[in-house]
Amino acid sequence: MSQAAQKSLIYEGKAKRLYSTDDPNTVLIEYKDSFTAFNGEKRAEMSGKGRLNNLISSAIFDYLAKNGVPVHFIERVDEVRQLAARVKIFPLEVVVRNITTGSIVKRLGVAEGMKLPRSLMEFYYKDDALKDPLITEDHALLFGWAAEADLKTIKEITLRVNDLLKDFFESIDIMLVDFKLEFGRDNDGNLLLADEISPDTCRFWDVLTGDRLDKDRFRKNLGNVLDAYEEIWRRISRMGK
Amino acid sequence: MSQAAQKSLIYEGKAKRLYSTDDPNTVLIEYKDSFTAFNGEKRAEMSGKGRLNNLISSAIFDYLAKNGVPVHFIERVDEVRQLAARVKIFPLEVVVRNITTGSIVKRLGVAEGMKLPRSLMEFYYKDDALKDPLITEDHALLFGWAAEADLKTIKEITLRVNDLLKDFFESIDIMLVDFKLEFGRDNDGNLLLADEISPDTCRFWDVLTGDRLDKDRFRKNLGNVLDAYEEIWRRISRMGK
Repeated sequence: MSQAAQKSLIYEGKAKRLYSTDDPNTVLIEYKDSFTAFNGEKRAEMSGKGRLNNLISSAIFDYLAKNGVPVHFIERVDEVRQLAARVKIFPLEVVVRNITTGSIVKRLGVAEGMKLPRSLMEFYYKDDALKDPLITEDHALLFGWAAEADLKTIKEITLRVNDLLKDFFESIDIMLVDFKLEFGRDNDGNLLLADEISPDTCRFWDVLTGDRLDKDRFRKNLGNVLDAYEEIWRRISRMGK
Repeated sequence: MSQAAQKSLIYEGKAKRLYSTDDPNTVLIEYKDSFTAFNGEKRAEMSGKGRLNNLISSAIFDYLAKNGVPVHFIERVDEVRQLAARVKIFPLEVVVRNITTGSIVKRLGVAEGMKLPRSLMEFYYKDDALKDPLITEDHALLFGWAAEADLKTIKEITLRVNDLLKDFFESIDIMLVDFKLEFGRDNDGNLLLADEISPDTCRFWDVLTGDRLDKDRFRKNLGNVLDAYEEIWRRISRMGK
């Protein structure tokens, strides 16, 4: 960590702060204790949330990197911070659904909790003012949000991540219902998986009890929100032990 | 028309009524004088509108059929009715955009009136209660709204129709901005272009003046709504003369 002394704040998002370091190719990502949902309309602070998401996301990115996925993540620095490659983020949210729930049920009127015969990948245009609308690949190409080769790489990585994460969570009795990924390009032009992977960005259902172990507990006022995050971290931290 | 005596009402939509005939393979489509917009929230009646859309749509389908497009349209019967193959409609609206305007500008925040480098095809799920949401091809496949082979055929026909209609309208000094198509399958299993093609379902801009000659005059209270439809019919009816 010697080369990564925290310098100035680059960006503050809903759940994280990004700081520059002495190295123009890296950033420090600090996880905040903030919960937000419904495009920022619902908010809360819960002490310890940032730590849990940092621990969980670091462990997952570590696992993905070890399995050959190109990631921005370099190393976890402390309880709430991680070092990552500095990337320019594509304005896309890539969502993978293995089971139908949440926005797709509301938007398309399909059945809740349906196990899809194959995973469904969706792209959303990252724009808070527009409420992150669903787009097609053609929208991304025609409006310059990603080039064709980038979309191809993003889709390949996303499917690989889905396979890897399904295995990872199955081994700790968690069903990976859906998740959101973001991608960026580093200073050398490499396309990398970026952002975070945590109970904020995934839906995790306990295989045995069906309990929701993710941000839906916050969205739907189910209570025990941090307990669920803690449970995810507990199972991950005991993996292989 | 001897074989097509009008029997019972099958279905009444916002702009048309469908009647059965003596032949189980055909229907009579009667065009109503009703205008609706914004998912039925705005409504009006204008005498003569049904006649104009029937004349315009019949002429366009006639042209498409002569150019090899498989269509439901058989013949115009009178001023407000046409005979067509009886089809089961796919629950899809297929939209082609050559220039950005309308919902896409609002939804994605892109510039108004941008000429796209190539045409953009979008699919919407036909469901009034859900307000016809945008979908991807994968949604249609996974939720059973169309099979892969059907989507392939629908896309091929749609691109062909766009090329044919652009030529058709260019020859009468009208820019084809965007349009919506629907498809169905007849009793013999043939996939056919169906519904109507009219100023209700297309955006037509006068090449010289930029005047809107379509339902946007109704949507946006621009006045002279039927005059615009009449002008479209006047130009079509004089083609090749």
